[in-house]
Amino acid sequence: MNSLLSKVLSSIQLPDAAVAHQAQRRLDSLTKPKGSLGRLEEFAIRYYSARGTMDAKLEKPAILTFAGDHGVADEGVSAFPQEVTPQMVANISAGGAAVSVLSRHAGASLKVIDVGVKWPCEFPGVIRKKVAPGTKNFAKGPAMTIEETEAALCVGIEEVFDSIDKGATIIGTGDMGIANTTPSTALYSVFLDIPASEITGRGTGIDDQRLLHKISVIEKAVEFNRKSLNSPLSTLAALGGFEIAGICGAILGAASRRIPVVVDGFISGAAAVTAMELCPEAASYMFFSHLSAEAGHRRIMNTLEVKPVLDFDMRLGEGTGAAIAITVIDASVKIAREMATFDEAGVSKG
Amino acid sequence: MNSLLSKVLSSIQLPDAAVAHQAQRRLDSLTKPKGSLGRLEEFAIRYYSARGTMDAKLEKPAILTFAGDHGVADEGVSAFPQEVTPQMVANISAGGAAVSVLSRHAGASLKVIDVGVKWPCEFPGVIRKKVAPGTKNFAKGPAMTIEETEAALCVGIEEVFDSIDKGATIIGTGDMGIANTTPSTALYSVFLDIPASEITGRGTGIDDQRLLHKISVIEKAVEFNRKSLNSPLSTLAALGGFEIAGICGAILGAASRRIPVVVDGFISGAAAVTAMELCPEAASYMFFSHLSAEAGHRRIMNTLEVKPVLDFDMRLGEGTGAAIAITVIDASVKIAREMATFDEAGVSKG
Repeated sequence: MNSLLSKVLSSIQLPDAAVAHQAQRRLDSLTKPKGSLGRLEEFAIRYYSARGTMDAKLEKPAILTFAGDHGVADEGVSAFPQEVTPQMVANISAGGAAVSVLSRHAGASLKVIDVGVKWPCEFPGVIRKKVAPGTKNFAKGPAMTIEETEAALCVGIEEVFDSIDKGATIIGTGDMGIANTTPSTALYSVFLDIPASEITGRGTGIDDQRLLHKISVIEKAVEFNRKSLNSPLSTLAALGGFEIAGICGAILGAASRRIPVVVDGFISGAAAVTAMELCPEAASYMFFSHLSAEAGHRRIMNTLEVKPVLDFDMRLGEGTGAAIAITVIDASVKIAREMATFDEAGVSKG
Repeated sequence: MNSLLSKVLSSIQLPDAAVAHQAQRRLDSLTKPKGSLGRLEEFAIRYYSARGTMDAKLEKPAILTFAGDHGVADEGVSAFPQEVTPQMVANISAGGAAVSVLSRHAGASLKVIDVGVKWPCEFPGVIRKKVAPGTKNFAKGPAMTIEETEAALCVGIEEVFDSIDKGATIIGTGDMGIANTTPSTALYSVFLDIPASEITGRGTGIDDQRLLHKISVIEKAVEFNRKSLNSPLSTLAALGGFEIAGICGAILGAASRRIPVVVDGFISGAAAVTAMELCPEAASYMFFSHLSAEAGHRRIMNTLEVKPVLDFDMRLGEGTGAAIAITVIDASVKIAREMATFDEAGVSKG
């Protein structure tokens, strides 16, 4: 295994339970009935215990959107043509995409990283780390080689380290890649042992007939690659995609630096599940931003025993759910940092 | 009826359906699969149709927190002593309360208005519009006179007009008043015809025995005042509170100026239901910010056929839920205003 990747995996530790207790005590001392801020309190505790200190602030949120193309698009599994991937990379870097708007709203920096788009992405601002021009069609063999997969994971690690080195204390993930609900569903199906038929959705908007076709493509592709599915890394290589591997690397890199990661929706979730397979301790650093409207996501979140931050029937990806969830986690941390205690405010207790 | 109040009630109109269609068309032209931003799109459409123009921006959000005390606290229905009301008014105006922190987070101005606190609230920044020093115990007769009720409604109207005149384009409501889940539950019970036993909760945290006592107090008080419950105004007077009437006035005043109102939680919801009774058209200007953890709120939202913006198990009041929901509505309006269209970005359609 690549040395950067193995170093990151070996350095991820469980969060600090003592800090979780400190955060709980701090919240209980504030001028409000105990527990009355509900999930906001849960988010603050998770943030502080991940960071490992009550001195942590939430500053300079950074959203990393990884882009890649998928050979399996040849099977006709998406409502949009593949050319949309580079077009949307250009739109994101120009500031006109949903994730561009919502990153500005969240006060977050936004990087869009070409880790495997089929066409050149020579647009201003795009970070060019293309491992290969799209994956192979995984209906006919592995999507990526092991070397390509490790390279894409390392792009994620390097890019998240760069953001953290520039001061980011929370990371949001995002994806852009036509057809990428197909490899994501395959990864969920294998890692969580759920039949593809139960979690395959319409992506950007396919009809009933194409949905059945998509399920069939995924089922056959998983069977075709069965002999390669003997480790998390080889499974990611066989069924995944460059942007999924990039997101997975970013999650692992952030966890290794004790920086919480806000996982976007369906695609980022597949990368998160892959990260948990590679290193179970990484799970404690994740916030799942929203319950996607993509069919199957509820079942997947239930299997993971996770309750996402938001439930807005969104199904866009790019990092849009992560951006909004970051604003909520920001609010929760401010509660813990800025509210007065009963003693400070001279308020009587119940 | 007071002339300001009757003028406001008569000037509230239904929102503009043509603008709702324009907003939908605009959202469908943006670079994303149709409908893929889910409830964010719903919020944007509601905002624009309330404002009546696609030129509307969301600027200078204002949160108005109304404070009052309740004679029914004498019956032992709350976990906290009544002295906490003025103490928390001081804490809010000093910037240390949860709503203070979350208003800053939302970029919202925050006014705290003494409309009926039992003690003087001579703290810097508090707006002093006290109608009376707390309500009468409504277990033994009407909480307020009709004149007091109209005066408190007019405080809400005047304060929201002041905020709108200063540039607010969205209003959040909030409450502070020990024991105020009791009158709120009574209002819900009468206006929505739901037995009090099915929607009475623990407020700031009472035990099982006090919960049964609280239900009994509400049931008896409603019966005791039955002859006074012959109009929305007389019902509000008999069972309500000064801060509830203030919030109700603020909601009506905002609707009359076509400014959307974000209704906080359980207490503000009772004021919103009262506003709907006084003027059904006002409902179209309301966003319900969050599903409160206070027992009964889910049943009430279902009865109103409303799905709140957020579900964070919060039960604090003050305007805390409204503040966070405003940030989400702000995001939704930015999506409609700032995203590129397919044509502008040169992105292929599906």
